[in-house]
Amino acid sequence: MKLYIIKIGGNIIDDEAKLSLFLQEFAAIDAPKILVHGGGKMATRMAAQLGLPQEMQDGRRITDAATLQLVTMVYAGYINKNIVSLLQSHGCNALGLTGADGNAIRAHKRIVSGINYGFAGDVDEVNATLVNQLLAHHSLVFAPITHDAKGQLLNTNADTIAQELARAMSGVYDVSLIYCFEKQGVLLDASDDESVIPHLSKAYFEKLQEERIITEGMIPKLHNAFSAVEAGVQSVTIGDAAQLSRLIEQQSGTTIKNV
Amino acid sequence: MKLYIIKIGGNIIDDEAKLSLFLQEFAAIDAPKILVHGGGKMATRMAAQLGLPQEMQDGRRITDAATLQLVTMVYAGYINKNIVSLLQSHGCNALGLTGADGNAIRAHKRIVSGINYGFAGDVDEVNATLVNQLLAHHSLVFAPITHDAKGQLLNTNADTIAQELARAMSGVYDVSLIYCFEKQGVLLDASDDESVIPHLSKAYFEKLQEERIITEGMIPKLHNAFSAVEAGVQSVTIGDAAQLSRLIEQQSGTTIKNV
Repeated sequence: MKLYIIKIGGNIIDDEAKLSLFLQEFAAIDAPKILVHGGGKMATRMAAQLGLPQEMQDGRRITDAATLQLVTMVYAGYINKNIVSLLQSHGCNALGLTGADGNAIRAHKRIVSGINYGFAGDVDEVNATLVNQLLAHHSLVFAPITHDAKGQLLNTNADTIAQELARAMSGVYDVSLIYCFEKQGVLLDASDDESVIPHLSKAYFEKLQEERIITEGMIPKLHNAFSAVEAGVQSVTIGDAAQLSRLIEQQSGTTIKNV
Repeated sequence: MKLYIIKIGGNIIDDEAKLSLFLQEFAAIDAPKILVHGGGKMATRMAAQLGLPQEMQDGRRITDAATLQLVTMVYAGYINKNIVSLLQSHGCNALGLTGADGNAIRAHKRIVSGINYGFAGDVDEVNATLVNQLLAHHSLVFAPITHDAKGQLLNTNADTIAQELARAMSGVYDVSLIYCFEKQGVLLDASDDESVIPHLSKAYFEKLQEERIITEGMIPKLHNAFSAVEAGVQSVTIGDAAQLSRLIEQQSGTTIKNV
């Protein structure tokens, strides 16, 4: 059976009109589905209002105790419950989760020598049995918060959560993993939105990487995509959230398969 | 089958040590169980930090859009997910919910002539099928947030949520509804903590009410309790959260039954 796992980021979460259209298209998908959302600018804005200084390290937020409290409120509270309630209004029986709920995603505190990321989590295990049970009746909406099963919540990258869910569920489902971002797909020419590569093989990716045609920011995303399809995920598609119904059909964005 | 529905309020949520002991006792209950939590002082404290003026009307918070955003963050985000994660650490497979998740509790905006409560919800319907399905594998933790099924979240009184859940589930389970508060139970003498009335019949309640022995604040709570047992809830017990295991055995607090 088919399962769609779709990740959205801040560029759509922060835009009420775009989010509404996206959720209508998501609600219309006639198959088991999981939405994974990131944070958006609200956490940053509220941190400023509350006078919490925010520190970044290699593009990741350093999560001290006050920041963990803030992101738990914003991601698991405000953003997650608004998305669930909007999906319900479109007739989609959504249920919102963090990794703590039903022990859905267990993680451990990230330890990288020399850098203290604070309460940031790296995923250990997805509870595929639970996710499968809940999918029988619901569409799931995951906030990017996990736990360590010892009482500690952990701030966890939403891209990683989507990928770990996709890998774990690929034992039971034919999983299509879709990453929505602000571009139409992987571009041959970063300045030309029409230059989307529809299908990217590993050999072609390596060639484009050698020729430095693929931009730096895309490289880890694509490495993760190839690693996901090698681990059993049926396809990974990267594209624009405004094109969701076409991304699902692989008629928009860039698709990666294990061929 | 037995089902325990237990409501806790701010006095315990705000006290880390008390909350931890309470959750250990909750985790140890060997039967289907639901925890309903209120808000605590965190929402009030954050409203002050964010410069949101808070207005009360007859003991209820007037919920404007900014306040709804705040309570959704604090109740459904921070408090709910911390409780879930702590329960998981005690081996209790907890799953946190608002009324929007799985359309668990549908409500409508409270309209009382002359008073605009804003985004405050009065409950229409509990989705007993969903709650029953989830109880097969999980202990449930409800935040006091519902939705109107049209995309609007609503701030809803936690006592009411506990009572509506108890009524709805009494068709399937023998429901014990337990309200934890800061006293040992209903007292014959408000100044004497030892004067707990262990069992309160309706006739005795009416007599105590006539004699003005029961304090004003308790009267609506007790009216609700009698109305719950008349609607099929097996018992309502009111007592101290620190005595949870004894409240469960009806060896502490005040118990009301339909006799």
